[in-house]
Amino acid sequence: MFFHRQELQHKASPDKPDPVYARKLQEVLGGQYGEITVAMQYGFQAWNSHLPGKYRDLLFGIGSEEFGHVEMLAVMIAQLLEDAPVEATDAAVKSDPTLAAVIGGMDVQHAIVAGAGARPVDSNGNPWQGSYITASGNLLADFTANANAEMQGRLQVARLYNMTDDRGVKDLLSFLLARDTMHQNQWLAAITELQTEGVENLPVPSRFPLDKEERDVAYQYINFSDGEMAQEGMWAEGPTPDGHGEFTYVADPPAGVPMPPPPVPDPRLYGTVPLPGPGLISRAADKVKDALSGD
Amino acid sequence: MFFHRQELQHKASPDKPDPVYARKLQEVLGGQYGEITVAMQYGFQAWNSHLPGKYRDLLFGIGSEEFGHVEMLAVMIAQLLEDAPVEATDAAVKSDPTLAAVIGGMDVQHAIVAGAGARPVDSNGNPWQGSYITASGNLLADFTANANAEMQGRLQVARLYNMTDDRGVKDLLSFLLARDTMHQNQWLAAITELQTEGVENLPVPSRFPLDKEERDVAYQYINFSDGEMAQEGMWAEGPTPDGHGEFTYVADPPAGVPMPPPPVPDPRLYGTVPLPGPGLISRAADKVKDALSGD
Amino acid sequence: MFFHRQELQHKASPDKPDPVYARKLQEVLGGQYGEITVAMQYGFQAWNSHLPGKYRDLLFGIGSEEFGHVEMLAVMIAQLLEDAPVEATDAAVKSDPTLAAVIGGMDVQHAIVAGAGARPVDSNGNPWQGSYITASGNLLADFTANANAEMQGRLQVARLYNMTDDRGVKDLLSFLLARDTMHQNQWLAAITELQTEGVENLPVPSRFPLDKEERDVAYQYINFSDGEMAQEGMWAEGPTPDGHGEFTYVADPPAGVPMPPPPVPDPRLYGTVPLPGPGLISRAADKVKDALSGD
Amino acid sequence: MFFHRQELQHKASPDKPDPVYARKLQEVLGGQYGEITVAMQYGFQAWNSHLPGKYRDLLFGIGSEEFGHVEMLAVMIAQLLEDAPVEATDAAVKSDPTLAAVIGGMDVQHAIVAGAGARPVDSNGNPWQGSYITASGNLLADFTANANAEMQGRLQVARLYNMTDDRGVKDLLSFLLARDTMHQNQWLAAITELQTEGVENLPVPSRFPLDKEERDVAYQYINFSDGEMAQEGMWAEGPTPDGHGEFTYVADPPAGVPMPPPPVPDPRLYGTVPLPGPGLISRAADKVKDALSGD
Amino acid sequence: MFFHRQELQHKASPDKPDPVYARKLQEVLGGQYGEITVAMQYGFQAWNSHLPGKYRDLLFGIGSEEFGHVEMLAVMIAQLLEDAPVEATDAAVKSDPTLAAVIGGMDVQHAIVAGAGARPVDSNGNPWQGSYITASGNLLADFTANANAEMQGRLQVARLYNMTDDRGVKDLLSFLLARDTMHQNQWLAAITELQTEGVENLPVPSRFPLDKEERDVAYQYINFSDGEMAQEGMWAEGPTPDGHGEFTYVADPPAGVPMPPPPVPDPRLYGTVPLPGPGLISRAADKVKDALSGD
Amino acid sequence: MFFHRQELQHKASPDKPDPVYARKLQEVLGGQYGEITVAMQYGFQAWNSHLPGKYRDLLFGIGSEEFGHVEMLAVMIAQLLEDAPVEATDAAVKSDPTLAAVIGGMDVQHAIVAGAGARPVDSNGNPWQGSYITASGNLLADFTANANAEMQGRLQVARLYNMTDDRGVKDLLSFLLARDTMHQNQWLAAITELQTEGVENLPVPSRFPLDKEERDVAYQYINFSDGEMAQEGMWAEGPTPDGHGEFTYVADPPAGVPMPPPPVPDPRLYGTVPLPGPGLISRAADKVKDALSGD
Repeated sequence: MFFHRQELQHKASPDKPDPVYARKLQEVLGGQYGEITVAMQYGFQAWNSHLPGKYRDLLFGIGSEEFGHVEMLAVMIAQLLEDAPVEATDAAVKSDPTLAAVIGGMDVQHAIVAGAGARPVDSNGNPWQGSYITASGNLLADFTANANAEMQGRLQVARLYNMTDDRGVKDLLSFLLARDTMHQNQWLAAITELQTEGVENLPVPSRFPLDKEERDVAYQYINFSDGEMAQEGMWAEGPTPDGHGEFTYVADPPAGVPMPPPPVPDPRLYGTVPLPGPGLISRAADKVKDALSGD
Repeated sequence: MFFHRQELQHKASPDKPDPVYARKLQEVLGGQYGEITVAMQYGFQAWNSHLPGKYRDLLFGIGSEEFGHVEMLAVMIAQLLEDAPVEATDAAVKSDPTLAAVIGGMDVQHAIVAGAGARPVDSNGNPWQGSYITASGNLLADFTANANAEMQGRLQVARLYNMTDDRGVKDLLSFLLARDTMHQNQWLAAITELQTEGVENLPVPSRFPLDKEERDVAYQYINFSDGEMAQEGMWAEGPTPDGHGEFTYVADPPAGVPMPPPPVPDPRLYGTVPLPGPGLISRAADKVKDALSGD
Repeated sequence: MFFHRQELQHKASPDKPDPVYARKLQEVLGGQYGEITVAMQYGFQAWNSHLPGKYRDLLFGIGSEEFGHVEMLAVMIAQLLEDAPVEATDAAVKSDPTLAAVIGGMDVQHAIVAGAGARPVDSNGNPWQGSYITASGNLLADFTANANAEMQGRLQVARLYNMTDDRGVKDLLSFLLARDTMHQNQWLAAITELQTEGVENLPVPSRFPLDKEERDVAYQYINFSDGEMAQEGMWAEGPTPDGHGEFTYVADPPAGVPMPPPPVPDPRLYGTVPLPGPGLISRAADKVKDALSGD
Repeated sequence: MFFHRQELQHKASPDKPDPVYARKLQEVLGGQYGEITVAMQYGFQAWNSHLPGKYRDLLFGIGSEEFGHVEMLAVMIAQLLEDAPVEATDAAVKSDPTLAAVIGGMDVQHAIVAGAGARPVDSNGNPWQGSYITASGNLLADFTANANAEMQGRLQVARLYNMTDDRGVKDLLSFLLARDTMHQNQWLAAITELQTEGVENLPVPSRFPLDKEERDVAYQYINFSDGEMAQEGMWAEGPTPDGHGEFTYVADPPAGVPMPPPPVPDPRLYGTVPLPGPGLISRAADKVKDALSGD
Repeated sequence: MFFHRQELQHKASPDKPDPVYARKLQEVLGGQYGEITVAMQYGFQAWNSHLPGKYRDLLFGIGSEEFGHVEMLAVMIAQLLEDAPVEATDAAVKSDPTLAAVIGGMDVQHAIVAGAGARPVDSNGNPWQGSYITASGNLLADFTANANAEMQGRLQVARLYNMTDDRGVKDLLSFLLARDTMHQNQWLAAITELQTEGVENLPVPSRFPLDKEERDVAYQYINFSDGEMAQEGMWAEGPTPDGHGEFTYVADPPAGVPMPPPPVPDPRLYGTVPLPGPGLISRAADKVKDALSGD
Repeated sequence: MFFHRQELQHKASPDKPDPVYARKLQEVLGGQYGEITVAMQYGFQAWNSHLPGKYRDLLFGIGSEEFGHVEMLAVMIAQLLEDAPVEATDAAVKSDPTLAAVIGGMDVQHAIVAGAGARPVDSNGNPWQGSYITASGNLLADFTANANAEMQGRLQVARLYNMTDDRGVKDLLSFLLARDTMHQNQWLAAITELQTEGVENLPVPSRFPLDKEERDVAYQYINFSDGEMAQEGMWAEGPTPDGHGEFTYVADPPAGVPMPPPPVPDPRLYGTVPLPGPGLISRAADKVKDALSGD
């Protein structure tokens, strides 16, 4: 169950409205790595969790905070939109270049659709979608997804921090940056904890029997481009992070196998198939004959 | 420039067609974490790279291999579809329960749209989309995204391995599992290398000045759910992975700040605003008067 | 701020797993009118609200409950998936027609992507998206959207109630049906309250000056199909619900106006335009000449 | 069958081109609540209708008019785009701030993709999609959806009316506003008619037996936020609109039930499960053993 | 303006319901190349047309017919769904393998969402979207898009024809196949007419000055794969269809140019850039210094 | 297998950065008819091909070139973004109208999400999606799709050519225009070759037996709009392109057939059905009785 308190975790009011910035801020509300994404992602990981205890508590504990971040950003955006221009613009922009930038730079749906309100979309107006989130049931994979989400998210907030001079906005972003610092650190710590405890290991999924994979290519760097410097990295020699092998470098991909012959599906799908004739491909011809004779 | 050779990196032919499995295999071709995603993701990261050298060579070297994996899976799926049923099914299923499962379980667009061919979609028929990929320009964030993608991908391939008895399919998946093992290890090694060399550090982005974030909440676990076990993890006490702090545990979120007063946008957006009267909110009233008087 | 308690509002456990039903239940979790939609819709309406007080309290009070409904359905679905089949199916289905139905009827991403977990998608696997929600800032319009959402939602739950014999599932749906009954009634009551108090009126938006619309067609039923029975409804005669007019019935649409002449855009867009010649359209010709001469 | 006449229901020509406004006008052509939505929505409701007669005639009669509205807006937009800028802009904008606003504010696909033509997208360029429409087969629910669509639509047109000074555009919008007034009234009248005739009733769906829902929570306002004013509305006391109960107000949600134990799916999905040991969860352990032993 | 007559162009009733086939038939209603696509495509091409007369009349004349085809398919699908199963299925399928196929093969949203009605989606349940259509303003390009759409459409209808034994369905498909034959022929004839009259020519767009393209590669087949047979086609030697050149075959792509040096964007975007040091890249270093010094 | 060489097929560097143009150029990278579309389209057609030899070699040979075009455009866009503004804009735009145009006209995700990098999206920021491509298995249909894609693509590049003065950009576009000229010609030649060789014929699919379509309407132009000029085209009289008939012109659509009676689905879907009574529709009534009696 979720309970709501009509307070915000941190002050979320701009010094003054700025509809162009409101549009930009949508990215960290409703974008691929916005707050809706992390709130939903941690929620689904918790609801789908197969083990109770500290890891699930962690997901619930942070996930609920993120719903509060969704709220802070939505409230901030609504205030940034308070003076969004709604009038005819032709005459106005002639004498006011700033207005021209506003007209061009704002999300027009903020006014037309939401009446100066926040929306569940990114900074280009693409609606948030469920395919942004990851919840696989494997916590080592999912915590890596979480670490990535918090990194991308903090990176975007840092960029947005430099795109405004508004002290109210910067104050909120300063708070969000710190929380993203925490969450990055937290998921990285949790990844270590999972392996330290032996709950999960590398490579993901670690309980799949290694002898069922083709082990001789499991630690080879095979170079499909002609840059030669990739052999200089830790991924090209030395022990592998999963502790099961040694990296090797293969400068030229070994020869492959020939393409298999093209399949010949049912002729009633009307695909283009070889013509019958002296070079007749009998399998296709027989199929066609069989299928059409009884039709 | 890309060059193509009419060979496959590994044999990709099933022992026999299986249209239901073909649908499932679409997930690792055109799904959120399928081969199109990693091929495109490494490509965009390389094209957008701001530094030449080993990291970009790595992205090009592996990205091109992934395009070849797209090809192997597409060719495999086309062969799995060779005998996809195209006939009227009512009578047929009555005597053949297996056919019933096929009718129900296959992707009908494989027959209707593609004529027994692979498609750039996932196992539920959702088209692949550009929003699956990540390329932020920050390599520490992006390599974490890559590690995550390879973990999710190997996890899905491992699940698919258990869903078939076809030796030809299993043989290909065995190869892909090994390559995913390599790629997981490789991105984790590259993450270490970036930090060892001092090219990037935690928290991402590390060059954003830490004193501009609200440091006092940067390492606090704040518990917004009532599970108490989250305090037992490495994320609740001890040093933080970024090396800059110590985790602390806050069992109860501190009091927040009151919601700001609702914004009062231009009345010509026709939002619902407070009624004038004794309790008149003068700001709103003035706005309405101003806007309508000159209209 | 949102706080989470590790309890459910109502018991949400099935008597036994049923992966086919799990897929169906996704509709009311992540579909157009599922619980994610109403939770997000009420949230955005509250965050964007321009007046504090009982209407906003209502939105917060119910919106938070809906997040708890998202949770109950996710938890239920995860349990329904506990025995989802993951093995090769060919041999199995031959002796077990029920398994054939399961193979065909389940959402394969439940196993491949989520490892037997709930997903933010509908019953066809389409990801939930932000464009499902409505938050316009006009409460009369939005509460009508809410009433509609609760009606469609209860309709779908009622249909799903008949699609299972599982008493655990039926028990949860019985609870959700009752809450939807409440929420339908509540939004309809709120619609009345808004008008009773004079906060909003019909037609939406009521503060747009009626004399700026073309009043002579504001209450006409104009019949563009040849069915004659539409003239027998309350929408074809008598007073209008907005209290400002009388319905009239127009059996045959009046003559329209001719199509305007086609526009002639810049020739550098290479659209197909009339050929010069005796019947030359001079405007187009001049444009082309002007544009190309200076190029 | 649909027949087309090369006339427009109302004049649809601007006084002069305005590509920025053309973009904004796309919202009511191809947006969530644009004319394509209502045309398609009424069409599908009619085609899916289970009863012939006045209600279906109404849907056909209005639906066909809406296709004509799609046409008027498309024709208007094409004319607004006649002078869309297609040239290099750097030098030009330096001396002309209005052009700067145009460059920034127009939909660039209008020029690049459509060659100065209307498109089936909204004002942010999101393509129209089938998930915008509602056609459930239950007319009381669907007519409420229709009333909502007409309200949101008229609200957006009213906002757009204030965003232009062009008399030609305002003239068309004035017509559309009036038709939206009619359609709002009409669907509200039809909702009343359905209930007056006893064809449908509240709560939707009214033929679902009420005794199968958990009646004791069917009229409770349960307050999941801490705002106290929601108890002052008509939704918190007094008779319910469906005529079957009395609203009550529950200030504090009653205690819930504990979360069910997490499910333990097949180990071959490689989800993270509890470790075996003294605190062994035997069900999980047995499952793993069973599954892997025979593999 | 569009007018509707409550008749169908052709009989559209199945002999008996078949919900699995109803799902398949959705492809040619709401799929990429379904009837909604061609109706909308011809409509937008007509509304955006820059020349009045026979070509625009053609678009209007056929486009309106296609809206009638949308209607016929929707009506057919609604009838096919009349007996869609809505009950609990576990017990039922055990004794009825056909029911198993139905449960698995039908679109579950047909029942849950639409109450046994047609939907604006394809056979996998993906909603129709505006990005399926093409209307560029250039009639030679667009008529080629139309010819393609009619070919793909007829191909899909032909495949669907073989997937049913229902005489009512086959009768309707037989009609649609004939109309698609007409429409394929018609657009091909219109393509010829455009060129015969000199309204448009190859290559599209023909009014772009050829001397502004790099003419020496305008007719070269450059072979980026290692198959050698592509040199045997009409595209590798002989005159080109546009009448302006001769095809040549280039077996090996000529050497390219080196990759440009990576760009160095503003450091406040926190992308990964080269480290300063002895091998310092001065441009990047200066940028960083400049940006941060004033910050 | 794909191999990558760190060279570009043609120089791809702008004279100077231009973030507004970078956004526009995204159209031909990640739009409906951008380079990702053709690269993927030719790839899937090749992988799904049912006949080896020159047609498949052609698809592989060109498809690989197109992946190189994706690369050139991505590299170009990244360079155009080098100076994208990242700072606060309010003060700046007041003195610099050009900056106002940049702020308004650029894709804000280029900075916020990609850190000045290219993205797999179109010029409005819509992500590329798998539903843009066509690969049906019928080469005559698919090569027509390819010809269309190259026509739309060249049209867009030609429009973009006029939207910049940058010689570096124009140089690359000049190259792409020439390659599109080649590819248009090539697919048109391949269409002719298919028919000349008798591999495929009109109408698509030509192997569907013509006597199974309703031949009497197979060559009729039926005019559903009131424009009379459509009878003047080659599509209204004379031989048909498929060589099997003669066009005829039907000025008025013949009378249709009555709408079928509405279907009466299971009452447990709670659709709106006729009321019982003197005019009772017995079929519906019986259904309801049957369904509910046993419930």
